[in-house]
Amino acid sequence: MSTAFVELFQQTCASIVPPDADAYADARSRLDTLTKPLGSLGRLEDIAAQWAGIRGQSASEPIRKAVYVFAADHGITAEKVSAYPREVTNQMVLNFLAEGAAINVLAGHQHADLHVVDAGVDADLSELPGLVHRKVARGSRNMLHAPAMTEAELYKALAVGIELSIDAAQLGYNLLAIGEMGIGNTTSAAAITCALTGKSVQQATGRGTGIDEAARAHKTAVIQAVLARHFHELPHANSLDILRYVGGLEIAAMTGMMLGAARQRIAILCDGFISTAAAALAISIAPDARGYLIAGHQSVEPGHRLLLGHLGLSPLLSLDMRLGEGTGAVLAMPIVESAIALYYGMATFASAGVSEIAE
Amino acid sequence: MSTAFVELFQQTCASIVPPDADAYADARSRLDTLTKPLGSLGRLEDIAAQWAGIRGQSASEPIRKAVYVFAADHGITAEKVSAYPREVTNQMVLNFLAEGAAINVLAGHQHADLHVVDAGVDADLSELPGLVHRKVARGSRNMLHAPAMTEAELYKALAVGIELSIDAAQLGYNLLAIGEMGIGNTTSAAAITCALTGKSVQQATGRGTGIDEAARAHKTAVIQAVLARHFHELPHANSLDILRYVGGLEIAAMTGMMLGAARQRIAILCDGFISTAAAALAISIAPDARGYLIAGHQSVEPGHRLLLGHLGLSPLLSLDMRLGEGTGAVLAMPIVESAIALYYGMATFASAGVSEIAE
Repeated sequence: MSTAFVELFQQTCASIVPPDADAYADARSRLDTLTKPLGSLGRLEDIAAQWAGIRGQSASEPIRKAVYVFAADHGITAEKVSAYPREVTNQMVLNFLAEGAAINVLAGHQHADLHVVDAGVDADLSELPGLVHRKVARGSRNMLHAPAMTEAELYKALAVGIELSIDAAQLGYNLLAIGEMGIGNTTSAAAITCALTGKSVQQATGRGTGIDEAARAHKTAVIQAVLARHFHELPHANSLDILRYVGGLEIAAMTGMMLGAARQRIAILCDGFISTAAAALAISIAPDARGYLIAGHQSVEPGHRLLLGHLGLSPLLSLDMRLGEGTGAVLAMPIVESAIALYYGMATFASAGVSEIAE
Repeated sequence: MSTAFVELFQQTCASIVPPDADAYADARSRLDTLTKPLGSLGRLEDIAAQWAGIRGQSASEPIRKAVYVFAADHGITAEKVSAYPREVTNQMVLNFLAEGAAINVLAGHQHADLHVVDAGVDADLSELPGLVHRKVARGSRNMLHAPAMTEAELYKALAVGIELSIDAAQLGYNLLAIGEMGIGNTTSAAAITCALTGKSVQQATGRGTGIDEAARAHKTAVIQAVLARHFHELPHANSLDILRYVGGLEIAAMTGMMLGAARQRIAILCDGFISTAAAALAISIAPDARGYLIAGHQSVEPGHRLLLGHLGLSPLLSLDMRLGEGTGAVLAMPIVESAIALYYGMATFASAGVSEIAE
């Protein structure tokens, strides 16, 4: 195992500091001088103040957006937990590169750069142009019978995300959406949710891409067996164990990227159930990362609601989506941008000569 | 009273037809061929299909957006129902023209044209450039003592909106946000809500721009007295009566514009409590207008939730906003645009070679 990857991970976690509390407080004060009833922009005011805290003195910079979509396969698909065949992970990667998927349309519409990362697709994609080649392995192991990853794979996947966060900072991005593609990965996300929170498998398990009630019962039983295999009791205290035993290569890379982005003081929009599972792991590993996260949307997956509640995050959108790929996070980007534009663009009561509230 | 205005109103209402059911059904079918799990785009799929129904054969045209903000004063402000002095209506109109208000920032950010309409501000704004001059009167009457409008004023204000909808169609707009500015107008909106739905004043009355609990109790008592003065029993069957007795000049103009936009087959994003009160009146007058409406957001005002429920409309956003000006509607524009972009931009399973759900 590469000690360089372990060190990168440890240094990254140790370097994360919370957002700037003074910049946050200053922004809150300034919001109250703008020509609107106090607090009337609601969540947009929270976002503007959070942004000021995250970016500190760089808060007035232009917003530079990107979405990173991490793809990987999952050994657990052998247990028939998904409505779609495993090959769809690879087919969708090709669709991303051909610009035919939902995330292509949304990223294009929002003028966000799209980076598609092969973190562990079970296909030889090494010759594909336009793909970010970071394959750790050809899929995770079947977590019903073994840890999903070896320790070496875990740290390598975390490093993939951390290194991409350094690239992202160098590219000038300050607002990232982090999404995924991986047939079988709601099974991992549900197992992570139960392991982190102690909630029941029944509560955390949904229909994924669209299985029926009988298949959901089977999926629930598989997750139950997976948890029983790896953990004596729940919740389990060691988040890296959880990630290694029941996570996935794309989930580990997303966790790494969220930790790295917090380290780089980049705002992170998390997407649906899987992306939020990675966020929950990142926050569990480094609690100060929490202030850099914005929940983009509430997906249909029941476990997603559990996780958002566990993290105390309130999603910006709730549109009955359950697609992943970063779609919900990218769809929330205009709200974040609007909040920041309002903060910098509105007149104050004094400058506009508007009467304030009567005493 | 001008019979021309009455005829314009009647002809407009008589010419409204529902969205095209065949185009809607075709869009629903096509959505199921796109490379995503069935239904996984949630509300975005509903919006894309609604758009196809609204625009029919013109659905693939570029989206051309505008926001119309209708301003007027309210006689009921004499009863001290608002946290802000009446002059703020006029001051905010000046702020709109100076581009300092929230709606200026949001419309600019979304590349939506902004039209500020003086439907009845209590100030001489006749020399102001950049304003759409359609003043019906210098504010409505105090509805505690008289109908808010005369019959002539009512039809003139409705005609303002209808004529602007014809202008909007000629300007090529196909997606409109309709908002307002008028100190005192949540009082009107609450009275309209009670008169239309029969709900209690207590349920429908909120804090407006920010009054305290004692002031809210006073506002509730004023609305109670207003309703008792004008109506024998609630709900009241005649929507034009409701609009004339307890509405406002900007609300009547908004109602007219929503009816006119439906007549022109333009999609309408309604904003907060007041905008939705106008929408509820429009739908009550011409039920086929309903299919052209999209609820942009859920505001903090409790009456807004009642009205949306009454109309069976589900808001796209819920961000604890309570500002008006069309802000919630404009903030929802990127969601509507994204839905349409996805519909036209995504690959199909067949074209992308992606496997469909296993049988």
